[in-house]
Amino acid sequence: MAGDGRTFDRGSGTVTKLVRNQGVTAPSGFRATGISAGIKASGRPDLALVFNEGPDYAAAAVFTRNKVKAAPVLWTQQVMTTKRLRAVILNSGGANACTGPLGFQDTHATAEAVASALSDWGTETGAIEVGVCSTGLIGDRLPMDKVLGGVKDIVHEMAGGLTGGAEAAQAIMTTDTVPKQVALHHESSWTVGAMAKGAGMMAPSLATMLCVITTDAVADADALDRALRNAAARTFDRLDIDGSCSTNDTVLLLASGASEITPTQDELDAAVLAVCDDLCAQLQADAEGVTKRVAVTVTGAATEADAVVAARVIARDSLVKTAIFGSDPNWGRVLAAVGMAPVDMAADRISVSFNGTPVCIDGAGAPGARDVDLSGADISVVVDLAVGVGEGTVRTTDLSHAYVEENSAYSS
Amino acid sequence: MAGDGRTFDRGSGTVTKLVRNQGVTAPSGFRATGISAGIKASGRPDLALVFNEGPDYAAAAVFTRNKVKAAPVLWTQQVMTTKRLRAVILNSGGANACTGPLGFQDTHATAEAVASALSDWGTETGAIEVGVCSTGLIGDRLPMDKVLGGVKDIVHEMAGGLTGGAEAAQAIMTTDTVPKQVALHHESSWTVGAMAKGAGMMAPSLATMLCVITTDAVADADALDRALRNAAARTFDRLDIDGSCSTNDTVLLLASGASEITPTQDELDAAVLAVCDDLCAQLQADAEGVTKRVAVTVTGAATEADAVVAARVIARDSLVKTAIFGSDPNWGRVLAAVGMAPVDMAADRISVSFNGTPVCIDGAGAPGARDVDLSGADISVVVDLAVGVGEGTVRTTDLSHAYVEENSAYSS
Repeated sequence: MAGDGRTFDRGSGTVTKLVRNQGVTAPSGFRATGISAGIKASGRPDLALVFNEGPDYAAAAVFTRNKVKAAPVLWTQQVMTTKRLRAVILNSGGANACTGPLGFQDTHATAEAVASALSDWGTETGAIEVGVCSTGLIGDRLPMDKVLGGVKDIVHEMAGGLTGGAEAAQAIMTTDTVPKQVALHHESSWTVGAMAKGAGMMAPSLATMLCVITTDAVADADALDRALRNAAARTFDRLDIDGSCSTNDTVLLLASGASEITPTQDELDAAVLAVCDDLCAQLQADAEGVTKRVAVTVTGAATEADAVVAARVIARDSLVKTAIFGSDPNWGRVLAAVGMAPVDMAADRISVSFNGTPVCIDGAGAPGARDVDLSGADISVVVDLAVGVGEGTVRTTDLSHAYVEENSAYSS
Repeated sequence: MAGDGRTFDRGSGTVTKLVRNQGVTAPSGFRATGISAGIKASGRPDLALVFNEGPDYAAAAVFTRNKVKAAPVLWTQQVMTTKRLRAVILNSGGANACTGPLGFQDTHATAEAVASALSDWGTETGAIEVGVCSTGLIGDRLPMDKVLGGVKDIVHEMAGGLTGGAEAAQAIMTTDTVPKQVALHHESSWTVGAMAKGAGMMAPSLATMLCVITTDAVADADALDRALRNAAARTFDRLDIDGSCSTNDTVLLLASGASEITPTQDELDAAVLAVCDDLCAQLQADAEGVTKRVAVTVTGAATEADAVVAARVIARDSLVKTAIFGSDPNWGRVLAAVGMAPVDMAADRISVSFNGTPVCIDGAGAPGARDVDLSGADISVVVDLAVGVGEGTVRTTDLSHAYVEENSAYSS
């Protein structure tokens, strides 16, 4: 995979390594596993646990901005008021969203069961230390006999080492075709690991998207919060597959402190950003129905925020996305789309390029614009609004027959 | 057709008749025609003229809110500062958008040519009295030899009577499969007639959409402006097929005064609204790739404006639209979509019904919700936000394979 063994220089002279076959158990102090609890009718893995062995339990979180929030989001928001987490239980096979007060009771009961099982296992744990994440069809109650039975089993199967992290990443998949995990090994001997799921419903705030990030760095909750919000704003918030936004989006960052290394805030920010950025690339590449990976960059905006807003408007435009599916360099649709963005632009000086080739200069077609080859899988769209120096990129995909097929053929 | 011979009581006791096989030449004082000028490679009709014989020339207009405006929009906005129109020339086969200063010169030259031809024909006309509308592919210059040649011909072929209006409606079609026209005969002996085109790119402000409305009522420009803005806000502005918005949208309302009847403002408002509403139904039914006509109604919002905003968010959601294409009563996607609307709502008291059957009550699933039959072509989605009495409806369509096919297979 592209991320395997990737190294990069973050300007400070340190060299850090990003590895894709490792996830939440790459940092010291974390155990994880995934099992088949019978929540999914298919019998595939559907329950994952990430357990922080400490010595620290500081944590941070970002959640969906959707006003309709699933029960596990409401629960985990309460848990996060303590700024600490000892464990996260995640299930696929059902979102437990729009399930009313009984659905919330189910989430609460799940957290209690995890706490009880961990306590029995030897680590005194309270439900208020257990985050809960769910993903799957909205609107149905979870099969709680399966969930609670699974919780008892999973605590006993928690593995240390890399295998457990990979099993967890597998168990949170829904329409994902591949698990997504990545680890960043800092040369100063601390590590960040992560797993994510999400293939549809990716949108303005976050993708549908469950993501657990772990680190063995020593960092307090405020440092984690700053690193996570900084990273989410620049990565998950700029991934927009279909403009829809889940009721369940949750990104959690847990620190065990097991490395006994305290990175600077800048080092922590950079590491979490790199991990989230890589996960976004993996999510984009596995999006529902994707045939092309599209990066829409807006330059020349009044501000960076304006650039992101304009890029998002283009990235969400069905006519732009279908044209790209058809490898059609129909730049007029890009102009029509960006013209609806609620930001400043100089309409008669806008320029557009596809894959580096100018197709529109000063608001009018460039020679050869209709002949640009968009047959490849990676498409870059760059739009210059000609009013300032603000820049921003939103990742999206094309709108394909497969997207329509996947989302019309069955309830998901 | 559904609108044929439809009559309705507008509360004042008067009965008024809506007829779909008549258009812009139904009112007295208007001539129109459509011809093949060779702008379209297919040889199909591509040039239309609507001519107001007077005695009045008052007019009103609404235009796209897109910041990227086509040359004919920029031109006609200038014309409309005079609040009068003697003629409108419309072409399909090219949008003349994103064509720079030369494209604007082409539009100007077209208006000059129409004015000159009308003057030669015996009606002294200035270019500033001629509105210009274009529709088709964005980004290419028009073949001006064809356009200017066509202008000379079309003035001589202008017919009175219903035939000319039908020919004009035919000549403005692009991906439309049927022409759209309607006439309203008021029992007080005045008439409103209209034609429209537009099948894709229908969006927040307006559909792509060219629409010319004529009336033989006596009405000054301010009365026309009020009637047109009122109608557009309740009809075209609430038709959202794919969230995209054209660079060329133009709706023009011309009054000849030939009936010598002066309706009240309320009568005029109601008549123009009825005509625009019927055209919207026709546009929706012929939208690109449509297999279902969907009406999304939001009730219980804090205000009518909030209701429309929320309905539009649902109507634009790809996951809702693909579910409806698949006849899947996946109400959870409606909840997830509306939860992102920037309006007040009581998330735990939201209710949803499909085709009149409750599928979600107080934010949770209703018994039998997954069994609702959505196999028919007309789908009603009603969402109650439970915070007020504001109501609004947005018309949309499903997101089908045919939509993807039509918009990916060729530049349009």
